[in-house]
Amino acid sequence: MMNVLISGCGGRMGHVVASMLASREDMQAVGGVDLRPCDDCGFSVFSSPEKVNVPVDVVIDFSNPSALLPLLDYAEANKVPVALCTTGYNSSQVEALKKAAKTIPVFYSRNMSLGINLLIELSKKAEKVLGPDFDVEIIEKHHNQKIDAPSGTALMIADAVSQARGEDMHYVYDRHSQRKKREPSEIGIHSIRGGTIVGEHEVMFAGNHEVITISHSAQSKEVFAAGAVNAAAFLAGKAAGLYDMSDLLK
Amino acid sequence: MMNVLISGCGGRMGHVVASMLASREDMQAVGGVDLRPCDDCGFSVFSSPEKVNVPVDVVIDFSNPSALLPLLDYAEANKVPVALCTTGYNSSQVEALKKAAKTIPVFYSRNMSLGINLLIELSKKAEKVLGPDFDVEIIEKHHNQKIDAPSGTALMIADAVSQARGEDMHYVYDRHSQRKKREPSEIGIHSIRGGTIVGEHEVMFAGNHEVITISHSAQSKEVFAAGAVNAAAFLAGKAAGLYDMSDLLK
Amino acid sequence: MMNVLISGCGGRMGHVVASMLASREDMQAVGGVDLRPCDDCGFSVFSSPEKVNVPVDVVIDFSNPSALLPLLDYAEANKVPVALCTTGYNSSQVEALKKAAKTIPVFYSRNMSLGINLLIELSKKAEKVLGPDFDVEIIEKHHNQKIDAPSGTALMIADAVSQARGEDMHYVYDRHSQRKKREPSEIGIHSIRGGTIVGEHEVMFAGNHEVITISHSAQSKEVFAAGAVNAAAFLAGKAAGLYDMSDLLK
Amino acid sequence: MMNVLISGCGGRMGHVVASMLASREDMQAVGGVDLRPCDDCGFSVFSSPEKVNVPVDVVIDFSNPSALLPLLDYAEANKVPVALCTTGYNSSQVEALKKAAKTIPVFYSRNMSLGINLLIELSKKAEKVLGPDFDVEIIEKHHNQKIDAPSGTALMIADAVSQARGEDMHYVYDRHSQRKKREPSEIGIHSIRGGTIVGEHEVMFAGNHEVITISHSAQSKEVFAAGAVNAAAFLAGKAAGLYDMSDLLK
Repeated sequence: MMNVLISGCGGRMGHVVASMLASREDMQAVGGVDLRPCDDCGFSVFSSPEKVNVPVDVVIDFSNPSALLPLLDYAEANKVPVALCTTGYNSSQVEALKKAAKTIPVFYSRNMSLGINLLIELSKKAEKVLGPDFDVEIIEKHHNQKIDAPSGTALMIADAVSQARGEDMHYVYDRHSQRKKREPSEIGIHSIRGGTIVGEHEVMFAGNHEVITISHSAQSKEVFAAGAVNAAAFLAGKAAGLYDMSDLLK
Repeated sequence: MMNVLISGCGGRMGHVVASMLASREDMQAVGGVDLRPCDDCGFSVFSSPEKVNVPVDVVIDFSNPSALLPLLDYAEANKVPVALCTTGYNSSQVEALKKAAKTIPVFYSRNMSLGINLLIELSKKAEKVLGPDFDVEIIEKHHNQKIDAPSGTALMIADAVSQARGEDMHYVYDRHSQRKKREPSEIGIHSIRGGTIVGEHEVMFAGNHEVITISHSAQSKEVFAAGAVNAAAFLAGKAAGLYDMSDLLK
Repeated sequence: MMNVLISGCGGRMGHVVASMLASREDMQAVGGVDLRPCDDCGFSVFSSPEKVNVPVDVVIDFSNPSALLPLLDYAEANKVPVALCTTGYNSSQVEALKKAAKTIPVFYSRNMSLGINLLIELSKKAEKVLGPDFDVEIIEKHHNQKIDAPSGTALMIADAVSQARGEDMHYVYDRHSQRKKREPSEIGIHSIRGGTIVGEHEVMFAGNHEVITISHSAQSKEVFAAGAVNAAAFLAGKAAGLYDMSDLLK
Repeated sequence: MMNVLISGCGGRMGHVVASMLASREDMQAVGGVDLRPCDDCGFSVFSSPEKVNVPVDVVIDFSNPSALLPLLDYAEANKVPVALCTTGYNSSQVEALKKAAKTIPVFYSRNMSLGINLLIELSKKAEKVLGPDFDVEIIEKHHNQKIDAPSGTALMIADAVSQARGEDMHYVYDRHSQRKKREPSEIGIHSIRGGTIVGEHEVMFAGNHEVITISHSAQSKEVFAAGAVNAAAFLAGKAAGLYDMSDLLK
């Protein structure tokens, strides 16, 4: 049985992680870290990592960037691996987590969804097999309150395909203002916005008389919690180092 | 049995129309007009409409804009309805066909596919029921040799939805250069290009927790020939006037 | 401002209705009926309809079949229209609501989703235009805990298409055990089950070289609450009678 | 420049292969084998393999099973690799080609489409990553004249997923006659039939709050010719042995 500490247990994602752990037989939540109260947590909640007084095998972190350094201090001092699922780290924070990865296993991925990371792996494989004879287009759909476009995930996919192609491909966001044929080195990226769509990504490889499509649809942000729990399980027994979702998929 | 004259019988679409008529029991091709030879046509081919010497009940025209005026002269002189399936008329040619429609039935539609026109009708109905609470986005996919974007059909759909909404909606082709929420009055129009895709159009209505999608996929340009034959059958017994696909769908 | 009484206010759908009303400017919840406590309702909750002592313009009911008769008594006595969104009525209960519809406006629909009902209307329209040359197939997708197949909605769609065709079509659920061509009078109905999919329905019309597809995807059961609120708004000022979603779509 | 002999050059697929070779700079058709005349072939056509008197580097075969043995005799005698793209071999013919593979390179795959074989590879990879927490369903769509169901390709996909899972999964073709929850070991296989659809296959992995889908759509049978030409190019310089599409994808 793996003992898990949930950093950020009082937030929405922390609750989802706790609920997922409760239904597993190989892992259990033994404590949390949060300044917010958590009456329904069902385990001890500490106001900071240094106050944690229960034995911990792995940390899952869904807190915020400012909580990173004390968490890494705790993890390094106790030789506990950490799965960092918080987004928005600045460059000095990224440096800090890379440094910690020299003494403990650290998991850190730009997108914690298992499905999204699988989508990216499959897209790379497809690109390697199909090559420049197949045109690549990415369609992403999100709710009408999202202010940025394209999604960070769409760019992750495009970067991965471009890398697999072995050349710099250029990203095209708008075709209506030009009159010319598509070039093989383009990746069209299309941002659909509407209603309450949580998040959909589709990668299309269109060749002569055939089209291959790989797509991912998320119903809720709970998929990130599932990825975090998987990452924590993956860290058990690993050597010190920096891991991400592509390691988990191998 | 309805006797059909195929104007432009020597071209690709003329051949498809001839082949479709051959399999119908209520219509038959009795002649064609074309300067090109047509050894396999199986009916008399005349070099111009004025030379046609067989009895004709309706004309299907897949020729080119320059052939319009002599064709209308023939049709008016013989009181024969015409289904004009040629694209690219200039404004004086459009005037000419409208004038002819005062004495004979004239069928003229920007897109001859029954399916595409149904898609447009359904989209208008959906917009009227759903209203501005549902965000409208249009995705069209075509082969990588197409030089214009968006497709004329995508614009026809957007215009129809905007008209059904009862206000001017603005068309958005690119979201990557801005940081703002989607407005209800937007219609996003996305042009995917790749491989040999013949033509796909999808209209998405995204609301709170539900999405309705109406889509059309064409395998080949033969769908335009099918629309032409349907239009010709529709013209039988009609009064003089200008008709289009929306009349046929009623 | 329209005053709404929520019957079944203590349940999940009742809560969603209350939340939706709170964000509208033309309607407000003024009371609820439920035996369950509802601390967070924010309006008076009565244990039975006869105890309601606030002025009500319309009732939205998401309770259960056994609560129907007292509710109808209340509505008839006070000349208040009712939107019945409960499912599972037996035949005598259906008789009772039909009888009440002779003195008050009663809204009752097998499926309260605006989108699903629109999907059905569009499918009927499509069938009337396309006719037997287009093959109709229905694909529905739901979560892996659903025990019945096909979904009631898939059958509603199939019935509507069959009626629009004007002949009895036969429903085909399995093709693997036979070796024969598809007949035009078939409607293939396919029940996909997996994960936590809330509910998706797709109607495909496949003809010569073109396919038209109409689809609906629900993210959550909240779409039924939205339909209920729309139905309540629709009932304002209506004459006595039995109404359903097809009236609302006109 | 690679010299190709097209066995079955007089048939439809033979013509497509010839046309594809004509547009390549690294391969050319130098002869064909067929009893049928081929006036437009543009290369020497021989009535049987033993009569071929031009130097050949590789054979592409789209003929019929009865032509296999003489073809293998020719290939073994001349040490020429063969890409066998004919379907419907009986077991003794399969034995014969395996025997030939001991002395020459032989390429033989149940499905010659590069895209379909990639779909299968990606599905195996997805299954290995996602495991039994994700439900697998396969949807295939074909024209209304196809008499068998499910498609052979759908079964290839199902077999590959089952093998990747590492346990026998059972295939479910019909859910309407039962009332029970889906089991993780099921693979639902759904055969949609309609119009002139050439061939579409979709594999869905549905988990908690996310769905991954991999799909392939073929516009025409030309994709098999493209696979054959790729296979022929792949065979250049290979050692004797039996190869299939999975080798080409590596």
